[in-house]
Amino acid sequence: MFRKRINISTSHEGEIIDITPKVAAAVRESRVQEGLVHLFVQHSTAALTTIEYEPGVLTDLARALSVLAPDNEDYAHNAKWGDGNGRSHVKAALVGPSLTVPITGGALGCGTWQQIVLLELDVNAGRERTIICTVTGE
Amino acid sequence: MFRKRINISTSHEGEIIDITPKVAAAVRESRVQEGLVHLFVQHSTAALTTIEYEPGVLTDLARALSVLAPDNEDYAHNAKWGDGNGRSHVKAALVGPSLTVPITGGALGCGTWQQIVLLELDVNAGRERTIICTVTGE
Amino acid sequence: MFRKRINISTSHEGEIIDITPKVAAAVRESRVQEGLVHLFVQHSTAALTTIEYEPGVLTDLARALSVLAPDNEDYAHNAKWGDGNGRSHVKAALVGPSLTVPITGGALGCGTWQQIVLLELDVNAGRERTIICTVTGE
Repeated sequence: MFRKRINISTSHEGEIIDITPKVAAAVRESRVQEGLVHLFVQHSTAALTTIEYEPGVLTDLARALSVLAPDNEDYAHNAKWGDGNGRSHVKAALVGPSLTVPITGGALGCGTWQQIVLLELDVNAGRERTIICTVTGE
Repeated sequence: MFRKRINISTSHEGEIIDITPKVAAAVRESRVQEGLVHLFVQHSTAALTTIEYEPGVLTDLARALSVLAPDNEDYAHNAKWGDGNGRSHVKAALVGPSLTVPITGGALGCGTWQQIVLLELDVNAGRERTIICTVTGE
Repeated sequence: MFRKRINISTSHEGEIIDITPKVAAAVRESRVQEGLVHLFVQHSTAALTTIEYEPGVLTDLARALSVLAPDNEDYAHNAKWGDGNGRSHVKAALVGPSLTVPITGGALGCGTWQQIVLLELDVNAGRERTIICTVTGE
């Protein structure tokens, strides 16, 4: 088992960051040829998924998440804590913090148009995010 | 590999249960120091995710799920089976039954404000839910 | 570690295919008795989840996904690329490409009413989809 922490500095709510190169580097460093890489973001206002990393798609994804958790909704979390990130928590819980990707031939088994992304969902910008990366296999 | 079944009694639709202590106990029992814990809920009207376990956020999450699957929608599942839990199936399929969390230093690698939760989504209350917990690592 | 590629031919947008028999066959072929099976769909307009495979529920799930990404929305992806599948990318990113299911007693640890499904979300029909299936355990 090989483990590495991937640290990402984010700048604004709704930022979507392509972390595929960093995950691919961790896989190479592990020297695993056939196996799995598990990713977990240790925060309740960020999430992980895969997407075609193209500006239009990223805009469309942000809009869809706003259907679930609109900006102008009255959030019970905000009423209680006053930090204004109720919508961030909701979006993150629905997308999820965890992703596992296969490794084949020493490389990530993603599709050609399929990148691994970190979603910065917090309204409070400029965060440091940690993703725990665990590689298993042979 | 260490395996344990976690059994949870639920009481009502929309209940969100913090299962972090039970998962942490299984991890301790496994004696794994560095590894992964996989969780899978064996039901099609329940789901697993992580969230800050704070009453406001839980209310906000329930509202967001109702945007996807409103209470007063006409569900094809209900029309066919008459059990009234069409919305429960839809929500569960979108949140998902599976979650993997890293283990670091013999403990769960969740963030400080990030708890592991079971979502009871069925309209028919008072269910016994089984989560299969699988620990791998060293 | 045992690995197998599952290839699925799809026919139309919104098609939901029960892949449980194919995954169960891969698990049997692996001879693993207690372990995990990881599934990953190598495409950005398809997704994996579990659901009760009943026609009513499948209709209800499709409707819920259309709340997130309506057919008649103006998608930035479509404006740029003209391939009309902006909604497909959004839905796939939210449901996710990855699923892990436990193996117990040599069989899949799904619930009785819980099937593993591939969601074909692309508007352009008739695709070949590849799912990488990885079995680990004892």
